[in-house]
Amino acid sequence: MRSGAHDLIETLIACGVDVCFANPGTSEMHFVAALKDYPQMRPILCLFEGGVTGAADGYGRMARTPAATLLHLGPGLANGLAGLHNAKKARTPMVNVIGDHATFHKQYDAPLNSDVEATARPYAHAILGATGTDSLAADTARAVAAARENGGQISCLVLPADLAWAEGRGGGRRRDAAARESVGADALEAATGAVLSGGKVGLILGGEACFGSGLRIAGQIAAETGVSLLVPNATGRVERGRGLPPLDRIPFPVPAAVSLLRGYDTLILVGAIEPVAFFAYPGLPSRVVDPLTRIVTLATPAQDVADALSRLCAATGAAGTPFRPVAAVDPDLPEGPLEPDSFAAVLARHVHDDTIVVDEGVTSSRGLFDKSRGAPRHDLLVNVGGAIGAAMPLALGAAVACPDRPVLCITGDGSASYTVQTLWSLAQQKSNVTIVVCANHTYEILRGEMLRVGAMAPEDRANPLLDIEHPRVDWVALARGYGVPARRAETVADLDAALADATARRNGPHLIEVPLAAGTAT
Amino acid sequence: MRSGAHDLIETLIACGVDVCFANPGTSEMHFVAALKDYPQMRPILCLFEGGVTGAADGYGRMARTPAATLLHLGPGLANGLAGLHNAKKARTPMVNVIGDHATFHKQYDAPLNSDVEATARPYAHAILGATGTDSLAADTARAVAAARENGGQISCLVLPADLAWAEGRGGGRRRDAAARESVGADALEAATGAVLSGGKVGLILGGEACFGSGLRIAGQIAAETGVSLLVPNATGRVERGRGLPPLDRIPFPVPAAVSLLRGYDTLILVGAIEPVAFFAYPGLPSRVVDPLTRIVTLATPAQDVADALSRLCAATGAAGTPFRPVAAVDPDLPEGPLEPDSFAAVLARHVHDDTIVVDEGVTSSRGLFDKSRGAPRHDLLVNVGGAIGAAMPLALGAAVACPDRPVLCITGDGSASYTVQTLWSLAQQKSNVTIVVCANHTYEILRGEMLRVGAMAPEDRANPLLDIEHPRVDWVALARGYGVPARRAETVADLDAALADATARRNGPHLIEVPLAAGTAT
Repeated sequence: MRSGAHDLIETLIACGVDVCFANPGTSEMHFVAALKDYPQMRPILCLFEGGVTGAADGYGRMARTPAATLLHLGPGLANGLAGLHNAKKARTPMVNVIGDHATFHKQYDAPLNSDVEATARPYAHAILGATGTDSLAADTARAVAAARENGGQISCLVLPADLAWAEGRGGGRRRDAAARESVGADALEAATGAVLSGGKVGLILGGEACFGSGLRIAGQIAAETGVSLLVPNATGRVERGRGLPPLDRIPFPVPAAVSLLRGYDTLILVGAIEPVAFFAYPGLPSRVVDPLTRIVTLATPAQDVADALSRLCAATGAAGTPFRPVAAVDPDLPEGPLEPDSFAAVLARHVHDDTIVVDEGVTSSRGLFDKSRGAPRHDLLVNVGGAIGAAMPLALGAAVACPDRPVLCITGDGSASYTVQTLWSLAQQKSNVTIVVCANHTYEILRGEMLRVGAMAPEDRANPLLDIEHPRVDWVALARGYGVPARRAETVADLDAALADATARRNGPHLIEVPLAAGTAT
Repeated sequence: MRSGAHDLIETLIACGVDVCFANPGTSEMHFVAALKDYPQMRPILCLFEGGVTGAADGYGRMARTPAATLLHLGPGLANGLAGLHNAKKARTPMVNVIGDHATFHKQYDAPLNSDVEATARPYAHAILGATGTDSLAADTARAVAAARENGGQISCLVLPADLAWAEGRGGGRRRDAAARESVGADALEAATGAVLSGGKVGLILGGEACFGSGLRIAGQIAAETGVSLLVPNATGRVERGRGLPPLDRIPFPVPAAVSLLRGYDTLILVGAIEPVAFFAYPGLPSRVVDPLTRIVTLATPAQDVADALSRLCAATGAAGTPFRPVAAVDPDLPEGPLEPDSFAAVLARHVHDDTIVVDEGVTSSRGLFDKSRGAPRHDLLVNVGGAIGAAMPLALGAAVACPDRPVLCITGDGSASYTVQTLWSLAQQKSNVTIVVCANHTYEILRGEMLRVGAMAPEDRANPLLDIEHPRVDWVALARGYGVPARRAETVADLDAALADATARRNGPHLIEVPLAAGTAT
């Protein structure tokens, strides 16, 4: 029988959604069954919902089109909320299909019952509760359209089980997303005036200004006018490396961010929001922009950023100017022991052309951005919302979106623990992902934060809530348990050889555990 | 310096909360630092928040007093919501301290910012936002009191970082929980009349009616009047075994539940809510109680269940009647291969006196309830809210609450995957927990559900969203990766020996992977 689930899936496909990351339950069984009739929709199982939503984030950032997720009732959605949070902050397009109890069953408050829409609300831009089979295809098309609007949104469609199992009425509806708002003449004029003012001016880039033609146009403006190009520390996707315009990344530590941003006459927001301190610290400012700096918004993240950049390029006379490309750097194998600096240098040697670098190495990989400036052209994906455990799911989603590109995924051991089950999906999908686990067996960033908030004396490092030391997690064993080949690399030469081996194979995921001393990166 | 965090912790301790399951971040660093000054508060780190809240659930069910949790902002709370959901449905007392950005920092919508209170709302009974250091101790005392009210509640205290780091004003406040509402005379009269009516009558027990003196009093009423004692399938804590009153558990499958409940003249709710189908299925009822059965509410879960039972016992003339105890059964080692029936029989042989059995074996362990009827006296904890992944966290919390009791934790491989990181905390705490992973490498329950909702033909088993088969998860490797000794048991004799060995040692956790064929338990 053709069911409502058929209508839904056909509509997703008609709307260009053909990947579904899933962790289903009873209320989604008709959706799961109907998938068999649509080989053009690729279903990918994750053993935990944090993997589902994180992978959809990685997919959406790279594919620039939404993946679907399939989640089971309120608690299944709740398990995926941290991933939605990160994706929302990254403005990743995503359409979440969340099964709910049958409409007639809700009133009995069965054990798994909760308020699905209220669960989604703080972490979604758009929530749509399907109310009937007649409108299911239109509701689905509306949900996909919402995911594509305003530069990328978290869209949720709550699907009661009885609508999925009722007789279908026909799917395949399409609906255009609302056009993105164009930047007004006054914003363009203010930005143009600032760029041409001769003062110290920076463009803070977000969204499509950070990769592809947007980035190249920003580079032309910089080459023509001398403005600098900056990206917030947490930016969803940044294209970089040799042959591309140079970008500076605003550092995580507040003093370093304040120092980088000091003395600007004007900072122009181009698809970004004003960068602020990730956390508040006693005695440090929340704002990292110099109080004397004027902030001009050329384009909000929701507006048409690419168009705004093109117009700024024309208005500033940069249309004929080539951008100044970053020069190639091929770092030598560093001498000495593996510590954060040499670690970053070795990693940078294995950023190949077209690599997707996913970096949630937290304290351990802070040097990578600098070391890989002159590496071959690559995309960098980081955790935008700060909900830890993003790296392996992002890598899974990026690998699904770009099966021909190598993915280098760097993660702290603390962060990898949150979504460790993603290793199984990487093995199951034979994703070409090299996972590097920075194993310092501690929440090293929290030691640093404890110092910074003034709650700890520097000599007073031991704390039962910061150590992952007793016992030590064996990442090689965990990876093998999930079917991912793994090894430990203890020296610079070991790591270099392990990375060369893993990135050359392209036959599925490989994990490399790198023991790093705690306390070296605070 | 004495900080607001000191006030908070001192107040928790004064209010009888002395265990804190935690996964903290920057905004909780003063809380973490202040813990050092209070050795009477036991901090327990989990590597994922699902472990934190699930462990607090297990702790609260066994200790009958709330544990605290410490969670990091909206996304950290979100990762713990599934555990809150289960605990809310189990009416477990729990007080969650959730750090938030500093009050002055919220306005900047930093990357990790989200609406913490809105995140908590669907899964908490009481939410309190701390607003000042002067009121922090009183707010904390109020949050603990709320956790103890109405038979156990999920209470949340949202703590902005700057209140934790401000100068403390003094802690140690106490506040009594509001007394539980007593059952009215009319409810007692209706229940008494029904019990003495001579018809077919059952008591459906919940909360304190399922263990301790409440259960024994229910047993007296049953012995005196012939009423039967029933518990809903998903009940937070059930004490059972030889020497205790016999209880029937309402089955999960709807036809079996309907069959058990058929023909009752009256069912009396004693701290329980009306049992309903866990899910809706096409053509099956949502209500499993016979439509001709009268339902009488003696006590809601929020009311004083123990007092109501005592009064019912007196009113029905059962005060002097001893309950009829279940006879001892010591099952022999079964013959033949390991399949669900022999599996359950072997497990039942290792339920020793005072064992805490945590059962989330889903399809694989359905026979255990029957096989362990005559086992030595034990407590049974199951997943009450249906948010999968509860078993290992519940076991951790139960072991912390009852360090002298053995814990036997049975979990499906699908369910164990959600909160697998809990293995590390079990190793770290050296908890006396034997974990049995039923490894059928599939979401077997979903195959059954797919049949039941009519979405799958019986011969059509393969489905990429239901298999955990390619690759097979190696639970022995995962356990060892987290520092938990582990082995595989492939036969009845193997499993019996492995369980004897693990339960005898009492030197920390042990994991036993039991390969079970898929498709035998649908």
